[in-house]
Amino acid sequence: MFKEVEPTYLPLHPRPAYLIVSGKGNEVNVMAASWVMPVSEEPLRIALALDRETYTFELIEKYREFTVNVVDAKLVDKVYLAGTISGRKVKNKISYLGLHTTPSLKIETPGIEEAVGIIEARVWNSLDVGEVRLYIADVVSVRVKPEYYNEKYGWDLRKIQILLHAVGRAFTTPSRIILAERKKK
Amino acid sequence: MFKEVEPTYLPLHPRPAYLIVSGKGNEVNVMAASWVMPVSEEPLRIALALDRETYTFELIEKYREFTVNVVDAKLVDKVYLAGTISGRKVKNKISYLGLHTTPSLKIETPGIEEAVGIIEARVWNSLDVGEVRLYIADVVSVRVKPEYYNEKYGWDLRKIQILLHAVGRAFTTPSRIILAERKKK
Repeated sequence: MFKEVEPTYLPLHPRPAYLIVSGKGNEVNVMAASWVMPVSEEPLRIALALDRETYTFELIEKYREFTVNVVDAKLVDKVYLAGTISGRKVKNKISYLGLHTTPSLKIETPGIEEAVGIIEARVWNSLDVGEVRLYIADVVSVRVKPEYYNEKYGWDLRKIQILLHAVGRAFTTPSRIILAERKKK
Repeated sequence: MFKEVEPTYLPLHPRPAYLIVSGKGNEVNVMAASWVMPVSEEPLRIALALDRETYTFELIEKYREFTVNVVDAKLVDKVYLAGTISGRKVKNKISYLGLHTTPSLKIETPGIEEAVGIIEARVWNSLDVGEVRLYIADVVSVRVKPEYYNEKYGWDLRKIQILLHAVGRAFTTPSRIILAERKKK
């Protein structure tokens, strides 16, 4: 039997938690976000839902680019901290978190050295939804740490624990692979 | 060391896999989708990236509403099948899959009885991105099976295995909860 609850996003969690890097030079910032998803394949574009009060919003408005950094569950404390402190209040938030930047290939905003995948994105369009600006961005480069990744199947879940966010301090990670039955001919 | 790969959405998977119901009366259809996410909290809105060639697209264009059905990993074969067969080719795709509808509270499009959560959504706005129409929809009702859900924390991952999609036939489910360290004061 179903029970109606106060409308909330919680039934749509857990979902992947990423580090979003924005800005360049001495204006680089990092935040945590899990409201990020692929939108189209041709061309490859992703969506990022971003609160318009964040410092990351200010930097993406200015430079129109960002990186999505996929992380292992080992980084859980840093991701949680990245999601709770504003880059407006902490100078050099990336080094404050004990993280390091790595140059991007196609954009000037860097990635995170400690990530396992870096997606470089350039804003293509946006739409304001409530308190959020929903960015739609072209993926201009994708890099991965190849020991954890298979070009046909994606992350090797036996080797890497991709971080997923549930709620607050609660995170999780995918478990074993479940193969669906082949479609009957 | 990072390696550049052909741009692909794969590094952004696994992520939750849902059953999307569209239409009403004898035009009801179901499909699988994992490019769905929350976008804003005030008001509560979600995004659904939908290929404009699907039958679901036709039905959402017609009725401007849909349900997002959150499912347990036990439904993996049905979700995979829902994602590989078009409702244009199979009459009564929902019963073909061995699933049943349940009436919604605020919209005419039903939910799936076998789901653990049903989110009723009414289209608010949309944006075309490549081959996709990205719908932004108001969440008008949320129901859950309360034995698996906590109103403060969301799904109880000890009791329910929320289905996540990796690639093709490969799915997974969240494992244990990992608690991030409390922020130091």
